[in-house]
Amino acid sequence: MKRLSLIDTCFLKMESPDTPMHVGALLTFRLPPKIGRQYLSQLVARLRSYPVSRSPFNHVLAQGPLAAIAPYWETDQHVDLDYHLRHSALPKPGGQRELGVLISRLHSHPLDLSRPPWECHIIEGLEHNRFAIYLKGHHAAVDGLGGLKLIKSWLSEKPDALNQPPPWAMPLPTSVRPPAPGPFAAAQQRLTGLRAQLRAVPEVYRSLVRARLEYPNGSLPALLKAPSSLLNGRIGGQRRFATQALKLSRLKRIAEQTHTTTNDVLLAVCGGALRRYLSELDALPRSSLVSLVPIALRPRRNQVGGNSLCGLLTDLETQIADPVERLHAINVSTQAGKRHIQQLSPTALAQYSLLLMAPLTLAKVSGLSGSLPPLFNVLISNVPAARNKLYFDGAELEGIFPLSVLFRGQALNITALGYAESFTLSFTACRDALPRVQKLAIYAGEALDELERALGIADIETAERRVVSINDAPRVRERLANPTDGA
Amino acid sequence: MKRLSLIDTCFLKMESPDTPMHVGALLTFRLPPKIGRQYLSQLVARLRSYPVSRSPFNHVLAQGPLAAIAPYWETDQHVDLDYHLRHSALPKPGGQRELGVLISRLHSHPLDLSRPPWECHIIEGLEHNRFAIYLKGHHAAVDGLGGLKLIKSWLSEKPDALNQPPPWAMPLPTSVRPPAPGPFAAAQQRLTGLRAQLRAVPEVYRSLVRARLEYPNGSLPALLKAPSSLLNGRIGGQRRFATQALKLSRLKRIAEQTHTTTNDVLLAVCGGALRRYLSELDALPRSSLVSLVPIALRPRRNQVGGNSLCGLLTDLETQIADPVERLHAINVSTQAGKRHIQQLSPTALAQYSLLLMAPLTLAKVSGLSGSLPPLFNVLISNVPAARNKLYFDGAELEGIFPLSVLFRGQALNITALGYAESFTLSFTACRDALPRVQKLAIYAGEALDELERALGIADIETAERRVVSINDAPRVRERLANPTDGA
Repeated sequence: MKRLSLIDTCFLKMESPDTPMHVGALLTFRLPPKIGRQYLSQLVARLRSYPVSRSPFNHVLAQGPLAAIAPYWETDQHVDLDYHLRHSALPKPGGQRELGVLISRLHSHPLDLSRPPWECHIIEGLEHNRFAIYLKGHHAAVDGLGGLKLIKSWLSEKPDALNQPPPWAMPLPTSVRPPAPGPFAAAQQRLTGLRAQLRAVPEVYRSLVRARLEYPNGSLPALLKAPSSLLNGRIGGQRRFATQALKLSRLKRIAEQTHTTTNDVLLAVCGGALRRYLSELDALPRSSLVSLVPIALRPRRNQVGGNSLCGLLTDLETQIADPVERLHAINVSTQAGKRHIQQLSPTALAQYSLLLMAPLTLAKVSGLSGSLPPLFNVLISNVPAARNKLYFDGAELEGIFPLSVLFRGQALNITALGYAESFTLSFTACRDALPRVQKLAIYAGEALDELERALGIADIETAERRVVSINDAPRVRERLANPTDGA
Repeated sequence: MKRLSLIDTCFLKMESPDTPMHVGALLTFRLPPKIGRQYLSQLVARLRSYPVSRSPFNHVLAQGPLAAIAPYWETDQHVDLDYHLRHSALPKPGGQRELGVLISRLHSHPLDLSRPPWECHIIEGLEHNRFAIYLKGHHAAVDGLGGLKLIKSWLSEKPDALNQPPPWAMPLPTSVRPPAPGPFAAAQQRLTGLRAQLRAVPEVYRSLVRARLEYPNGSLPALLKAPSSLLNGRIGGQRRFATQALKLSRLKRIAEQTHTTTNDVLLAVCGGALRRYLSELDALPRSSLVSLVPIALRPRRNQVGGNSLCGLLTDLETQIADPVERLHAINVSTQAGKRHIQQLSPTALAQYSLLLMAPLTLAKVSGLSGSLPPLFNVLISNVPAARNKLYFDGAELEGIFPLSVLFRGQALNITALGYAESFTLSFTACRDALPRVQKLAIYAGEALDELERALGIADIETAERRVVSINDAPRVRERLANPTDGA
């Protein structure tokens, strides 16, 4: 029995047909040289031969009234691996378009919560001697970083490492754990914890208001001023997915030359892409779009150990046309945001993150639902995956593309991921709310080109672009023709 | 605006994660001779070029409080065809196993009820120069026979008919319709209709009890005596699918020789397969399994026009080991059942069918939930599709395999379908409740062999068998090891 944390409980409660709460990862591999035609079917057969012996892969949600108050995981001794491990194929020509369509479709299906909530798809038929793996897990069971850690533990830095066990069969490091509380005690602890969280709500709001007053011109930290936009309309359950691969060295060079950070450059690239995308739809808000950027914080003096993960609200400065000027303005905004967060107490910090990450659920709990404007327009994460090339069963990992959850009122999520020399942007979007998401991916690449041109960086390397192109939906066109109906 | 009938409303209300209420059809085709490698992608592109202009393909469920009482369809002017028309592929070798796994998976996904509830999948990679089409629609929008009619209208008896429009773009025959009632009137009509249906409930039950008294030895019509079995446990949302193709001529010859009907032979084959399957699991009930068989009835004297479709309860005589003896007993049971049904009034007949087809919903409405034993163990339909070979865009239709809905407490559905010279059994089953469904398909073929051997029919033709084999689920094995936990 393993109790869910408060935030994991939130992810569970937020599950709905319009907002399925699973995260995913698409991994593309080059087939090893000199292999037989049976490589993939043998791989699937080998993976199928392992027992599902490791958490969270053998964890299933407990049923019953106590589980409804304080949900917990039970160990499923009879996991139906044939259900979770799936062999799929792309139609010809097996390009990025076909891959994008399949992944969008797979990511749109909700997980079966009566089973351990994960799926692993081995996908054949990818052109240029490649194959893909799509992994999917419920956000209540695995967060983005935890999922990445799991994936990395499955892969190897050695090209010749063969027959690695799948993540669901790998031995767990032995650790001494305190005994889990009984269900009654767990429910009581949950309520106590929730009360403490709620007591911190006023502090967070006081802090937000104080910060707002400190910067009365409204141009500094992006607090309580996210504009309405197409990105925050009602969302449905179907997803679109697009990707863009850039070179990390290009972002680093710009950051050095402008005395900003790689993350600032990422935000400038996203801001530039969103500005152009929304302008073309005649839907660019006058004031800056606001992004929520999860960041790791150094502990404060009176705080015990470890870093905290926290959500940083920052302007994307989409009202600024000049790319370099936009980058500098973003840098001012992120610096101010970080200072603001450092002032919060640890409890308020946790509450602040929860409030930002899970706006609707906690707004409901705290009775503030409906009276708040959108706190942010788009969530942009930046995750370093690995510096060295990774391999799986002799196959080189070419790229990792994370697929995120969308919250109610959040039609777009951007995740940037650094792996070896590449830097990949993954766009997870609502199929109905946002048209032609692949354009956003293209524009992100072009926003980087534009920054380099403006900075006079001569030898612009040709961007390695892999854009998933998916056709447009008629109901999106309709919505754009009648903007009052949309966001 | 088009109002849903009472039975369509039932299908809508019964939709749940465990009982998604869609029907499907798998069609397999031989690729036309002398075609280019682009045949299928060109086909998909051509189908994608048509507007979605025909009901029910452009019908979406209306929203709002009145729609909740009396649901109705609205016309969606902006159907997102890319969502509904999907190009898929099988992993190698693209055999019946891979096809079965994909179809089971596709049939397990619920339809998005915020859109017109249908999907059409063009599936490439089927071995021996074949391809498949899987069509899926909500049972509230299309019934099995209506779906079959739609499919037939799409196909042609001419091998050289090319460029046929897809069913969602075909012109509708012009007809004069009475104007639809307004939503208030519709809601009122619905309540009045429901009251009339409920008043007929006692008559149905009286009739069932009367029939039971008329045959006190309990061996004749299968009324109110379906035994508990593995087939009637709790079901989950995932499906398994298996098929078996037989020659229609073999069933006809047996029917002639034994003075029974082809339908009786079908039931004997299903009974034989179920007897062997359940025996091996040590789960064969002592008394006969009861099947519900939808049949077309001649109108009664005082009834206006048309045939009625009605559910016939009949014994499968699974307690009898001898195949010929079992066939004769089934014949006695079906004859008695037909006599019983002929005694009912038209209203009671309609109610009888509703009661049998939708046991839980109506039991709930009538307050009888929980106090009734299962009315039947398995639904077995027998549908004639077409006598002549059919073609689609030059490709010969090789087989049609219907996929059915499962109701709560009904883990198995068998549909038999006659097309040209073949007679196909399709088994739609709950993934968790029934292990190794492909065995049922194999045993059905062997039950036919056995009947022929027992009757001394010398020249047994080799059965053309296509059995979808899907591995077993561990949770099913567990359930079988602890039978009290299961059915």
